[in-house]
Amino acid sequence: MKVILLSHTPEPDKLVAAAARLCYAPIGADQLLETMTKKQVNKLVEDLMAMGHESPIEHVSFTFAIEGVSRAMSHQLVRHRLASYSQQSQRYVKENAFEYIIPPSVQANPKAKEVFLRQMAAIQECYNQLITLEIPREDARYVLPNACETKIVMTMNARSLYNFFQQRLCLRAQWEIRALAEAMRLELIKVSPLLFNKTGPKCETEGYCSQGKMSCGRKPTRENSR
Amino acid sequence: MKVILLSHTPEPDKLVAAAARLCYAPIGADQLLETMTKKQVNKLVEDLMAMGHESPIEHVSFTFAIEGVSRAMSHQLVRHRLASYSQQSQRYVKENAFEYIIPPSVQANPKAKEVFLRQMAAIQECYNQLITLEIPREDARYVLPNACETKIVMTMNARSLYNFFQQRLCLRAQWEIRALAEAMRLELIKVSPLLFNKTGPKCETEGYCSQGKMSCGRKPTRENSR
Amino acid sequence: MKVILLSHTPEPDKLVAAAARLCYAPIGADQLLETMTKKQVNKLVEDLMAMGHESPIEHVSFTFAIEGVSRAMSHQLVRHRLASYSQQSQRYVKENAFEYIIPPSVQANPKAKEVFLRQMAAIQECYNQLITLEIPREDARYVLPNACETKIVMTMNARSLYNFFQQRLCLRAQWEIRALAEAMRLELIKVSPLLFNKTGPKCETEGYCSQGKMSCGRKPTRENSR
Amino acid sequence: MKVILLSHTPEPDKLVAAAARLCYAPIGADQLLETMTKKQVNKLVEDLMAMGHESPIEHVSFTFAIEGVSRAMSHQLVRHRLASYSQQSQRYVKENAFEYIIPPSVQANPKAKEVFLRQMAAIQECYNQLITLEIPREDARYVLPNACETKIVMTMNARSLYNFFQQRLCLRAQWEIRALAEAMRLELIKVSPLLFNKTGPKCETEGYCSQGKMSCGRKPTRENSR
Repeated sequence: MKVILLSHTPEPDKLVAAAARLCYAPIGADQLLETMTKKQVNKLVEDLMAMGHESPIEHVSFTFAIEGVSRAMSHQLVRHRLASYSQQSQRYVKENAFEYIIPPSVQANPKAKEVFLRQMAAIQECYNQLITLEIPREDARYVLPNACETKIVMTMNARSLYNFFQQRLCLRAQWEIRALAEAMRLELIKVSPLLFNKTGPKCETEGYCSQGKMSCGRKPTRENSR
Repeated sequence: MKVILLSHTPEPDKLVAAAARLCYAPIGADQLLETMTKKQVNKLVEDLMAMGHESPIEHVSFTFAIEGVSRAMSHQLVRHRLASYSQQSQRYVKENAFEYIIPPSVQANPKAKEVFLRQMAAIQECYNQLITLEIPREDARYVLPNACETKIVMTMNARSLYNFFQQRLCLRAQWEIRALAEAMRLELIKVSPLLFNKTGPKCETEGYCSQGKMSCGRKPTRENSR
Repeated sequence: MKVILLSHTPEPDKLVAAAARLCYAPIGADQLLETMTKKQVNKLVEDLMAMGHESPIEHVSFTFAIEGVSRAMSHQLVRHRLASYSQQSQRYVKENAFEYIIPPSVQANPKAKEVFLRQMAAIQECYNQLITLEIPREDARYVLPNACETKIVMTMNARSLYNFFQQRLCLRAQWEIRALAEAMRLELIKVSPLLFNKTGPKCETEGYCSQGKMSCGRKPTRENSR
Repeated sequence: MKVILLSHTPEPDKLVAAAARLCYAPIGADQLLETMTKKQVNKLVEDLMAMGHESPIEHVSFTFAIEGVSRAMSHQLVRHRLASYSQQSQRYVKENAFEYIIPPSVQANPKAKEVFLRQMAAIQECYNQLITLEIPREDARYVLPNACETKIVMTMNARSLYNFFQQRLCLRAQWEIRALAEAMRLELIKVSPLLFNKTGPKCETEGYCSQGKMSCGRKPTRENSR
């Protein structure tokens, strides 16, 4: 899996602080960005977080290029609707040597791995045959597996990212999307520790688990924490 | 493919007309629904359409149960973000005899069909082997194909449906999602011809094609229509 | 304030249960609604709630007609973006005898009330004068006060409503939007106690207060509850 | 009215081109941004526009600080839901010398202007009296007019901006929000002529008017253009 932070709103801490400041103070637009010290920025952003006032963090967004992930994963990923996606199309791009993701449980089991790899090769051969038989790419791809590698460019604002991390860093989340969330979070912390250091799975940010009987047991569930 | 209209806002024409009416007339909430004749409802909705005033149609929503569709299709479907989805999970539901969608181009080509069916059987066998080797379902499914059948419950409001039809009834849309759009549209017309009779691909509702050099040629492109 | 539940998805409990069921069970679309007892519906919905699995409740939506509220309130209301609105327009509807909302603090203070009422009358007179001077309605309305009464039709799905209640039933929320939230909640409980009985301000649903130093003190803040 | 482009995604043309490129070409994430010439960027973006393929332009967003606008305008503005807002609060910020917007029709009519200005002064006095009578700010503001000045920080992505311009540059749009749209568009063209030069009211981008009987007559309506 390769996760690259392609681009983002410049100086995100400062922009969030400026937006927050406008809400509560009689200050003009000109001065919004200019008159803040680093210390003031930190104070404003920390106050926002402490008050659960999340809307100003929507002003900053982050664009990732993601590759080496499966379509099993991307199908889950695009369910996050407060985000923008551009995904490599299997309708147009020919998969004459498709790559694929091997789940760790398969990787760790020699017999399973052998079965898995053999099947990937068989599917590739079948795809090629269908193309030779003049089946269009967009139909030949029906034989391609969930494991098939895909590439995606995704943009989310910080508020949507907080929610993404709450859900997808949970130990109950599927391993591949959790690995993506972890990789994204590391990139974001490099750029803005102030905004992203305190992000985490819901049990860490909220102090309790909301998975009920599905809980991993790491934190008390909502029912038991009250 | 099976497309069932599970549920919808009752009397959708009337509710849309009531919302439209409120915008332009000094009328109380009590009277909104009560004092309209069928003729008034028709007139109000037709005027809305003619003025391109789409927001009142957001108040009515429609829920479909969809089955017998492929995960290739559902991956496209869930890209429509102004909608709600509940999809059968391959993480939890065991695929001990998975069903699959055969593309028409494959169906029509005996040799391709044979290759395709054989591959589906091989994939099923591989999946079963992985389960036997104690690979968890959520990882065994990595071998399952895009063709694999899925079930989904989807809700969209009428405005989102209009947009869905503009894009997905286009002859350039992928065949399976176009078939879904057609089936949904037929169900909706039964319930509300007033709201859905005039829906269609963008070239029909707008009078020109917006696909540029990808155009099917049925209508002039935007560039050529000006 | 008048809050009328104009319309809603029929049998909302059952539809939510059907959508939830599809996710976890190998069941066909036909049987989704037909084969559930009331007891099964209750069990399914309660399990969803306990697991914090909120997406199936998006399939049901509720439409309110709201009148006797101020534009101060409606300006806050329309900030909830996962909702649909149709509002009476001051551009088109002439305000020859505009109504207005008197805040309780003004109502309770005879001197303030007198000042307030006198001002409302003066504003009405000014508006009328501007109309007489051939100022268009859409500009004459610039003198109208925040207190000015408005009417609105609003649709939200249950998930958006949960979030609305978490924020707007908070004692820190502005009194008028809190009163609206309370009135809406009462209407919803009549229709679906199963879905709406447990809704409330965030401090009740989550067990802690997220307002930080702005907290009313009713519940410990997140910081203090950990 | 003051409209400042506070911040935006760096090199927006290039990022849009990179996202578009990923969809159709077998290229890795690393190379996405690096290997494009300015000419390729232009070609890719122009092709997108010609094909009506709008999703890649969602990856770039633009943040404006807006001041010297009325709350009549901001109430319309925040109806655009695919955007993020931080607005100066009348609940917390004391309006001891509130500023206000004078509509051009009032400005141009000396008698109306006199009436209008006198009323603004009277409202200010009333607000001050209510504060003196210990009415809280959040209630005293109920007397403040729609004309009252507000400040807002707003972020939209390019796709949402296109739609904003289609609607709000229309001659039928209210003058103040049209002026805002014009000012925003000018700022955007400075930063990215490639992305924003061709934006405009719907009649210009689509070639017909969708306002039906409300049309200004500048372009044929949809009905007449077919």
